[in-house]
Amino acid sequence: MKAVVLLSGGLDSAVTAYIAKAQGYDIYALTFDYGQRHRKEIEAAKKIVKKLSVVEHKILSIDLTQIGGSALTSDLAVPQGKSFSEIKSSEEIPVTYVPARNTILLSCALGYAEVVGADAIFIGANHMDYSGYPDCRPEYFAAFQDLANLATKRGIEGNYVEIKTPIINLDKKEIILKGAELNVPFELTWSCYVGGEKACGKCDSCTIRLAGFKQAGLKDKIKYNK
Amino acid sequence: MKAVVLLSGGLDSAVTAYIAKAQGYDIYALTFDYGQRHRKEIEAAKKIVKKLSVVEHKILSIDLTQIGGSALTSDLAVPQGKSFSEIKSSEEIPVTYVPARNTILLSCALGYAEVVGADAIFIGANHMDYSGYPDCRPEYFAAFQDLANLATKRGIEGNYVEIKTPIINLDKKEIILKGAELNVPFELTWSCYVGGEKACGKCDSCTIRLAGFKQAGLKDKIKYNK
Repeated sequence: MKAVVLLSGGLDSAVTAYIAKAQGYDIYALTFDYGQRHRKEIEAAKKIVKKLSVVEHKILSIDLTQIGGSALTSDLAVPQGKSFSEIKSSEEIPVTYVPARNTILLSCALGYAEVVGADAIFIGANHMDYSGYPDCRPEYFAAFQDLANLATKRGIEGNYVEIKTPIINLDKKEIILKGAELNVPFELTWSCYVGGEKACGKCDSCTIRLAGFKQAGLKDKIKYNK
Repeated sequence: MKAVVLLSGGLDSAVTAYIAKAQGYDIYALTFDYGQRHRKEIEAAKKIVKKLSVVEHKILSIDLTQIGGSALTSDLAVPQGKSFSEIKSSEEIPVTYVPARNTILLSCALGYAEVVGADAIFIGANHMDYSGYPDCRPEYFAAFQDLANLATKRGIEGNYVEIKTPIINLDKKEIILKGAELNVPFELTWSCYVGGEKACGKCDSCTIRLAGFKQAGLKDKIKYNK
């Protein structure tokens, strides 16, 4: 069995890749260089695939900064300093939301899956910690599955590519515990939205990560700015 | 009203852009540089937007040659010399099919539509002349509409982006007659898959175009190799 795994270099996608591997899939890792500010993620992805042996690692360039509309791809400020409970209780869609991002990434993964003949696409989307993102909801992925079945040559032949979201209903603590069980090299992953030499420790992503490790009773070994 | 129009530089997308304009939309044209061999299409798109006044013309780079799998983005040979009836009656998916192409293009258009606040996305897909492409079928676009409604911030707010395929059920003759009615500058469009100085006149795309002009009783003013 072959699987395309969307590997951003973040913690969630790393755990997802290890889950796919544990399920017996040969891994075709796909990382996007979409002009994100935190390019350290891409370096992290390269280190992760070295640990996890993969058949192939594609890094696909698509310059979403040309579209704009997000703090991650344009010069909007990344918010910092919110507490864990403020982030969790917010009903706003964060400014770090990249318009149609998961749709764009999954579409490219679908093309790649068709070329390599993959049986599944794994994406580390998560519904619990980022409920403000429309394209992280289970109903969104169900709609993408319907589309994928119609969109491709394989689909027409009745040979569907399964869209798999193994961590969608886990919270960060549970994702970290799952990753620990599978020996995910957390120290190689990168979550910070700001992207300096060390993680900022203050953006939403750092705050959620730090709280997750604390709740899991584990130490996060990456370096943070004090 | 605002519309994102996928403008490849080919005849079908040019007619589609003029239809959107005639329907009263302000046009945000989106062209992809996806590593296609026939880069003359991109130059054609630039000329077309000068004629048709548009609010903005984005050219988005995404290197699909990294994924491969198509004669248009890799070094597979583009077939030439088939007759119009051979092309029309073929049940094979052509080697010029780019895996998941329309899904990738529509996804990016969806992100762009969200950023500019567009009410519609126009795509010049056509069901009649390219029935072998899975992602040119009406049921495929219906599934993409369902996905788009779930995928975006606007969708969550109940403010849907409408996916419009105005020429999907027209054959090439009818598309050309519609374009003639709207004064589409056909001489600026580029259809050839091969992409030399002049159009080859022998690939499937040239053959369908030439037959369409003939059936429409109009002269195709672009230059062909003898």
